Amino acid sequence: MVEKLYLEDLNVGQRFTSATYLITEEQIKSFAREFDPQPFHLDDAAAQNTVFRGLAASGWHTAAVAMKLLVTSGLPLGNGIIGLGGDLSWPKPTRPGVRSTTLNQKGEAVHEFTSKVLVFKRDKLPTAD
Amino acid sequence: MVEKLYLEDLNVGQRFTSATYLITEEQIKSFAREFDPQPFHLDDAAAQNTVFRGLAASGWHTAAVAMKLLVTSGLPLGNGIIGLGGDLSWPKPTRPGVRSTTLNQKGEAVHEFTSKVLVFKRDKLPTAD
Repeated sequence: MVEKLYLEDLNVGQRFTSATYLITEEQIKSFAREFDPQPFHLDDAAAQNTVFRGLAASGWHTAAVAMKLLVTSGLPLGNGIIGLGGDLSWPKPTRPGVRSTTLNQKGEAVHEFTSKVLVFKRDKLPTAD
Repeated sequence: MVEKLYLEDLNVGQRFTSATYLITEEQIKSFAREFDPQPFHLDDAAAQNTVFRGLAASGWHTAAVAMKLLVTSGLPLGNGIIGLGGDLSWPKPTRPGVRSTTLNQKGEAVHEFTSKVLVFKRDKLPTAD
């Protein structure tokens, strides 16, 4: 069991590394059908004639997978990971078959999020009214 | 058929409004099980004792729904909607049963994204090599 962290446990410069996740072609297409139905996320042949030059995951899919990694393995915050927003970028496409911590197979970032996160002190947790 | 827009069709101050989308409790839980398995996104009773004070959608779910609305009804860009990143915030929780254009039932924004979007001129479209 990983020890849970609260505000007083966090320091500038701490780094946390998540597990990895394999994003498949079928997952890319399934997410896209539901949330981002555009040719470059749905069909590899159609995607060749776009700026992506091949099937790429929706950026929101990449972001959601990054969240899954943070929640399940990356950042053991006692109150959970509660993002308020931040600065998001997708510098590279996310390709199918990449096992990733939001880096692609070349070690390049495919998703970056500098986030404002809500973190409580141990003795200032929300409780039932 | 809505006319597709290219870079030369866009002007400062243009506004586009999407259709609406009903986000249900089951959808919130289903998305959370896959991508953001935290109590405040999975269980209404557990969520009462958190800062959310009740079930709320994952911010990434809200973002994905906003993308669906943009793609299917909101912003008819000729090359599709290709985001490079931007400034994201979730000022309010997204509750189940809200029919929304990323505003909640009080008309408050639940998701804001000031985005960098790639848009081509008509005569500068990517084509097959």
